[in-house]
Amino acid sequence: MEDRTYTADAEPGDTVTVAGWAHEIRDLGGIAFLIVRDTTGKIQVKFEKDEMDDDLVDAGTNVNRESVVTVTGDVEEEERAPTGVEIVPDSVEVIAEADPELPLDPSGKVDADLSTRLDNRTLDLRKEETKAIFEIRAEVLRSVREAFRELGSTEINTPKIVATGTEGGTELFPITYFGQEAFMNQSPQLFKQLMVGSGLERVFEIGPIFRAEEHNTPRHLNEATSIDFESAFFDHHDAMDACETVVKAAYEGVAENCQDELEALGYEDFEAPEGEFPRLSYEEAIERINATGELDEQLVWGDDLPTEGEKALGDDVGSHYFITDWPSEIKPFYIKDHDDDEQLSTGFDLMAPSMELVSGGQREHRYDRLVDGFEQQGLDPDAFEYYTKMFKYGMPPHAGWGLGGERLVMTMLGLENIREAVLFPRDRQRLSP
Amino acid sequence: MEDRTYTADAEPGDTVTVAGWAHEIRDLGGIAFLIVRDTTGKIQVKFEKDEMDDDLVDAGTNVNRESVVTVTGDVEEEERAPTGVEIVPDSVEVIAEADPELPLDPSGKVDADLSTRLDNRTLDLRKEETKAIFEIRAEVLRSVREAFRELGSTEINTPKIVATGTEGGTELFPITYFGQEAFMNQSPQLFKQLMVGSGLERVFEIGPIFRAEEHNTPRHLNEATSIDFESAFFDHHDAMDACETVVKAAYEGVAENCQDELEALGYEDFEAPEGEFPRLSYEEAIERINATGELDEQLVWGDDLPTEGEKALGDDVGSHYFITDWPSEIKPFYIKDHDDDEQLSTGFDLMAPSMELVSGGQREHRYDRLVDGFEQQGLDPDAFEYYTKMFKYGMPPHAGWGLGGERLVMTMLGLENIREAVLFPRDRQRLSP
Repeated sequence: MEDRTYTADAEPGDTVTVAGWAHEIRDLGGIAFLIVRDTTGKIQVKFEKDEMDDDLVDAGTNVNRESVVTVTGDVEEEERAPTGVEIVPDSVEVIAEADPELPLDPSGKVDADLSTRLDNRTLDLRKEETKAIFEIRAEVLRSVREAFRELGSTEINTPKIVATGTEGGTELFPITYFGQEAFMNQSPQLFKQLMVGSGLERVFEIGPIFRAEEHNTPRHLNEATSIDFESAFFDHHDAMDACETVVKAAYEGVAENCQDELEALGYEDFEAPEGEFPRLSYEEAIERINATGELDEQLVWGDDLPTEGEKALGDDVGSHYFITDWPSEIKPFYIKDHDDDEQLSTGFDLMAPSMELVSGGQREHRYDRLVDGFEQQGLDPDAFEYYTKMFKYGMPPHAGWGLGGERLVMTMLGLENIREAVLFPRDRQRLSP
Repeated sequence: MEDRTYTADAEPGDTVTVAGWAHEIRDLGGIAFLIVRDTTGKIQVKFEKDEMDDDLVDAGTNVNRESVVTVTGDVEEEERAPTGVEIVPDSVEVIAEADPELPLDPSGKVDADLSTRLDNRTLDLRKEETKAIFEIRAEVLRSVREAFRELGSTEINTPKIVATGTEGGTELFPITYFGQEAFMNQSPQLFKQLMVGSGLERVFEIGPIFRAEEHNTPRHLNEATSIDFESAFFDHHDAMDACETVVKAAYEGVAENCQDELEALGYEDFEAPEGEFPRLSYEEAIERINATGELDEQLVWGDDLPTEGEKALGDDVGSHYFITDWPSEIKPFYIKDHDDDEQLSTGFDLMAPSMELVSGGQREHRYDRLVDGFEQQGLDPDAFEYYTKMFKYGMPPHAGWGLGGERLVMTMLGLENIREAVLFPRDRQRLSP
């Protein structure tokens, strides 16, 4: 529509055609109002019944809510109108009449449960709050990519159909690929590592990952967006620095470019985190968790952190923080151990602050040790030969991390369920829409 | 590595540590050179055998090619060095020794066939030319996203695991999803359409698509990158305008930001296309193809264009061009027909110029006709109810398109095989790496 004016751009004195949805109709007797909503906002259209053509009044005031309409008319100042202006219409056209019965009320006056919202995302995203989440999500991706480029990394795309999973056969969705068994990839881990040994050296990827985890919790998805980074000649300290830069860039981008969206969500004092993210060793972390007294049983060295422990420590620290120097045995085989202590890995997690947001570390780049690692994990190194063999031809030391895109949005906005941060989430029960 | 200097940044007078790969060793007797290569370029390291410590000389000149090394030393001007400077080393450390037998020669002196290159992408991307393709690919994605944002569209991510394919059960890879049958999505088509009916109105997505096509040609992939756009209140003319803007933006981004990469690939006069892309009707297209005399049999109305026909017309037009007004029967059911002629669809293709690059059109937004379309296509509308039902609640007229990311890179750079534009391509024979 060449001649369309967005509602937000309609200025007194203009003759405009706006296009959008019939948000609300208020009939006060002699006068009636149609509120037209588009992606930029809303505008009031005034119908003076005695002074206007009956067909025009009928078209504008007897239309079902959420129908698609176009309205042509003059824009006038009107103090009492919600935006200070209104349209006096010359013509109203109903482009697509909506059913009178809506499965979800986009005005937000009637609450809908999450499942109904997810079944009707088209209507759900007509609500300012829901739309705001996804505008913010898009800004997060934009600013994260920009931060990656400022770090000198090259965007890559790695395959989602793979012959072997990153960490073996568990938690993989099997595919039938021209009669062969294949899987949907659970992480770009192995592929991004192959790229740090190439002339690219430093890479990032933002793409889908697939995990056949049986969890059904407010913070797990079976299809998620992974934000991955990997760099040659980086150790785990460098990788944490890069991680901090990227996470802060996401917050800064949103703080700077999403004022309206933050307002729609009720944030009055959204701020990007300042100062360095504290770096706690795993040992310190379990001590502090034990000291909170929140757990029934004290944690001992070697335990993974339980969800309640993460929450207790997150409350205690009160900001994003890293947990470093994990026991080697609870980190994946491709994470390098400390040179002076094989029980201690260079793996790290970023907590946000009561939930794991990022997992990373320096990688094992020495061929012999890597192959040993596969065997210790119970994996057949031959099945991963496409990956391991490249470590024989000059693989530099390297480090990196993976960041959960939806968890970043969820923790940033304080969403209660990770599904609120995905347009069409996938979980055990939900495969459609 | 905090103290690393990139080879391109080493200036005479500096004391530096460079890190990279042993690209070449030239031993001239009393003097020997090690060429160290990193992601920014190469630098010469000079060893004067009589004047230097034997261990140092040995470390720098007896190392296998493609090993990872660090070299610390003083940078000096040297006219005869390839970059005008060289390093006089104080120390050389071999970080990761490479096998003497390489499956592929990254210096490019020995040709490798595509299959060997794809099996050894880590080494293949140490070649300047291959690296250049993927740096350009990253720039294409960056500039395309920027163009989308300038067009006022919001980035979305739609699911890759779906219950039903866009165009039914053919050409889909089946997945086992917690005991249910599911598929890998062949196109975000239906999901992006759902979003134009939401408050977002105008959206884009760049992500993987999966097609179980049995083709094995130099221009088909079974996993590809789709660049998708869709906008409310757009007709097919508007969609073509947006398409032209985005494709040109990709060329302009590369022309502006990838000078070194274009040079590495031997382009001396790379230029973004100028002027409007011609818009030929299908009828005109078949007439012109017939007039070239390149086909054994004349095309008649209703024929799809054969590959040789596309080539002949591409040569004839000589630039990107659109083919519009296709017969309805050879376009998918979700493409809208012309209001005044139901035999004629609003579908369009962008040719680049001898290969289809984009396919798009105005969509059918009227519920009853859409449901009829499913039935005519032999699809069960009930299986797509998650999609069709949203058309009952105010679906605006809309249009959009899908652009093949790899084809964009392939046609831009004149690559002979689309696999050259993907790090790890997937086809019938290739599932690994």
